[in-house]
Amino acid sequence: MSDNTAAIEEIRELLGDRLSTGSSIREIHSRDEAYSTPSLPDAVAFPETTEEVSQIMRICTKHKCPVVPYGVGTSLEGHIVPIHGGISIDTSRMNQILEVHAEDLDAVVQPGVTREQLNEDLRATGLMFTVDPGANATLGGMAATRASGTNAVRYGTMRENVLALEVVLADGTVIETGTRARKSSAGYDLTHLFVGSEGTLGIITKLTVRLYGQPEHIAAATCAFPTIDDAVNTVILAIQTGLPMARIELLDELQMKGMNTYNPDMNMAEKPYLFLEFHGSPAGVEEQVASFRDIAEEFGVQDFEWASKTEDRNRLWAARHSAYYAGKSLRPGAEGVVTDVCVPISELAECIRGTQEDIAASGLIAPLVGHVGDGNFHLLILVDPESDDELKRAKELAHNVCRRALASGGTVTGEHGVGTGKMRYMEEEHGPAYAVMAQLKKSLDPNNLMNPGKMVQVN
Amino acid sequence: MSDNTAAIEEIRELLGDRLSTGSSIREIHSRDEAYSTPSLPDAVAFPETTEEVSQIMRICTKHKCPVVPYGVGTSLEGHIVPIHGGISIDTSRMNQILEVHAEDLDAVVQPGVTREQLNEDLRATGLMFTVDPGANATLGGMAATRASGTNAVRYGTMRENVLALEVVLADGTVIETGTRARKSSAGYDLTHLFVGSEGTLGIITKLTVRLYGQPEHIAAATCAFPTIDDAVNTVILAIQTGLPMARIELLDELQMKGMNTYNPDMNMAEKPYLFLEFHGSPAGVEEQVASFRDIAEEFGVQDFEWASKTEDRNRLWAARHSAYYAGKSLRPGAEGVVTDVCVPISELAECIRGTQEDIAASGLIAPLVGHVGDGNFHLLILVDPESDDELKRAKELAHNVCRRALASGGTVTGEHGVGTGKMRYMEEEHGPAYAVMAQLKKSLDPNNLMNPGKMVQVN
Repeated sequence: MSDNTAAIEEIRELLGDRLSTGSSIREIHSRDEAYSTPSLPDAVAFPETTEEVSQIMRICTKHKCPVVPYGVGTSLEGHIVPIHGGISIDTSRMNQILEVHAEDLDAVVQPGVTREQLNEDLRATGLMFTVDPGANATLGGMAATRASGTNAVRYGTMRENVLALEVVLADGTVIETGTRARKSSAGYDLTHLFVGSEGTLGIITKLTVRLYGQPEHIAAATCAFPTIDDAVNTVILAIQTGLPMARIELLDELQMKGMNTYNPDMNMAEKPYLFLEFHGSPAGVEEQVASFRDIAEEFGVQDFEWASKTEDRNRLWAARHSAYYAGKSLRPGAEGVVTDVCVPISELAECIRGTQEDIAASGLIAPLVGHVGDGNFHLLILVDPESDDELKRAKELAHNVCRRALASGGTVTGEHGVGTGKMRYMEEEHGPAYAVMAQLKKSLDPNNLMNPGKMVQVN
Repeated sequence: MSDNTAAIEEIRELLGDRLSTGSSIREIHSRDEAYSTPSLPDAVAFPETTEEVSQIMRICTKHKCPVVPYGVGTSLEGHIVPIHGGISIDTSRMNQILEVHAEDLDAVVQPGVTREQLNEDLRATGLMFTVDPGANATLGGMAATRASGTNAVRYGTMRENVLALEVVLADGTVIETGTRARKSSAGYDLTHLFVGSEGTLGIITKLTVRLYGQPEHIAAATCAFPTIDDAVNTVILAIQTGLPMARIELLDELQMKGMNTYNPDMNMAEKPYLFLEFHGSPAGVEEQVASFRDIAEEFGVQDFEWASKTEDRNRLWAARHSAYYAGKSLRPGAEGVVTDVCVPISELAECIRGTQEDIAASGLIAPLVGHVGDGNFHLLILVDPESDDELKRAKELAHNVCRRALASGGTVTGEHGVGTGKMRYMEEEHGPAYAVMAQLKKSLDPNNLMNPGKMVQVN
């Protein structure tokens, strides 16, 4: 009997039928939304409490059985693929919103709570949770990948929005990192060590997240530009001017074509677009809008369209959040290879220009969208999964995009994370610091059981 | 010959007369501004480059000689006291501003650059560095203690304002953490691990810090309240309303008395005061001010005084930054025992109320100031250093303040750090997470040479 089998038997005693070895459940937990090779877990556990996660970890450490935490499987770099088998720990039953402290602008939630669930729950309080990746991801998964989204430019990423964590370590120890105080100088910042650690150091079982008051007034708009360069230069100048935009998103011509295809209601010009949102008091928003218009007009802006009604705004941002699927609709049946570089804003225009030349040279279809206020943009490179040649060209294209970002002083992943897809760049991006990451991994997970084979190579 | 002597000889070969064993230099490096027992280093090194710091660390590791990094010695918890002797590494000669990227709103500096030096240098650019502890501390020291100051409520602490670091590790390895990109999901967040690590994991040799555009319009004010409760409740409501105040500082009656004594120009009522600042467009500031006034009037605000001219504002904040020395002027010759708790804003009024009762019961003089927008406040407990009884009562008072903060879900140190003074609370504040901190320390500093005896106990 292999060690994993022994672990599974003990976990079954603990969880009963909340431990599944059925093939369809294992299949679901074998892949995320990335184009990467699936790999089955030996079993899937559905714990409901921190204590159960802790017991699972004690059992798995005893039997040296790997574990991979799983939210809803919307990651894009193969993070949750159990490449060494073992137990997939699905947090979907840990989906309670435990506390909302309206007066402190924070909430305490279990890791399986999704961002839409939390915002639905908050609606009546006048508060909002701001981090919004495209998918309706779980907060545990978002913390683990240091996710962000369309309004990080104003409200920050998960890095800024997680105040404290409860984490189960490899040996089953339960720790709490941080407090609900807004700042602290007490000790090493373990919260930030676990945010972005992709399940390789511990399993997040509780999160305290920052909330914001819903803005008094919101104005959203879309506007088209003659060229993508004009759109990007508008963004750069607006950021440098210090305009506190809540959202400023770039979509290229091809992406707009996909949006029109995927969203039957949309009927927008197939030109480079910015999607914008401004938050504040009525007078403050008016000022921001006027300043933005002045800048945009310098770059030949066309077709300002305002979405003032809530439902129009919601439709706009729902469309933006569908960008991944909209992009895929440009080539039904294709798989998507996604890039995620982020560069200093001063390098953004040059970086996008070079990227577009690379796309043209590749002969591939690759719409571009970006959280350009952060210097972060994505390609969705569409490939026929049956064509080795296309896949090779897609990987070359993605590789060039990454190399250019590194040469520009940027990072290969602004918000998707490392998973298996970006490991090859870690040495180059981090230099000698990458060895320090491996040291930390070894220190906290000496048996290499926590999502092994991801983030850092140890042994 | 002891190992430290051998290390000193090798470092002297490297640095020449930039390695000092003179008693007055050692004396200066034996203490910070805390009331704690001084301890002399065996020598003080004044490196000028990262490479020199790296060589010093190689030598010290070879000879198992402890090191303590030193900025300008303004820390308040004994952080830089070489309690196990060894080398004090003074960064004052590493004081170059290396790069200012106005277009990316960041700057790259050496660790010995002070906050005033950086802002002086930035003045012509229209940019500012915002973190402002009372003292004119070095940025390296501020990063190492995760410092903040009067405007963290709007612009964040060093946690939010350090984008990337260069760090020399115990074995002399030089690593870079982070990039100039505004966000990244690439690997463990080493930047945040070193920010706040108080020199116990490595020596910061370069920092990339975030800059902000100087606000278009600034309004500053002072206002008095009938009771400290009224002032605190005004702050709480203003924060909960989401008012984006740049500064909101509380000073109690006693502190105001000290301010009047210390600053000959000031002649303000000895009542609980808030010192305020609003940043934004002219219309935006006007809105903020009006909203704040509405709230303050609910709590019986008196004597709004506006400082509209730059020199009046500067005078106001210079006075606020002198609070520590002003407090000390209440009792010339006294030593100060400083507290630094930070609690969730909803707990603040109750926490300050209980603290005031404790002060009354102690019979000691202890003015109160606070960055109350963050939930952070300080007592400066003034004691006759010759009186064991007073010192005992002061420590009891400080202890009660810390225990109350922990019971309120807060932290014993909002911005001063752990040093030696707060170590006794670490186990209670962090629980099992404190052992994880020790594990990380052992992993990165296996010989316990980096500021040993601080932050975590390892053996």
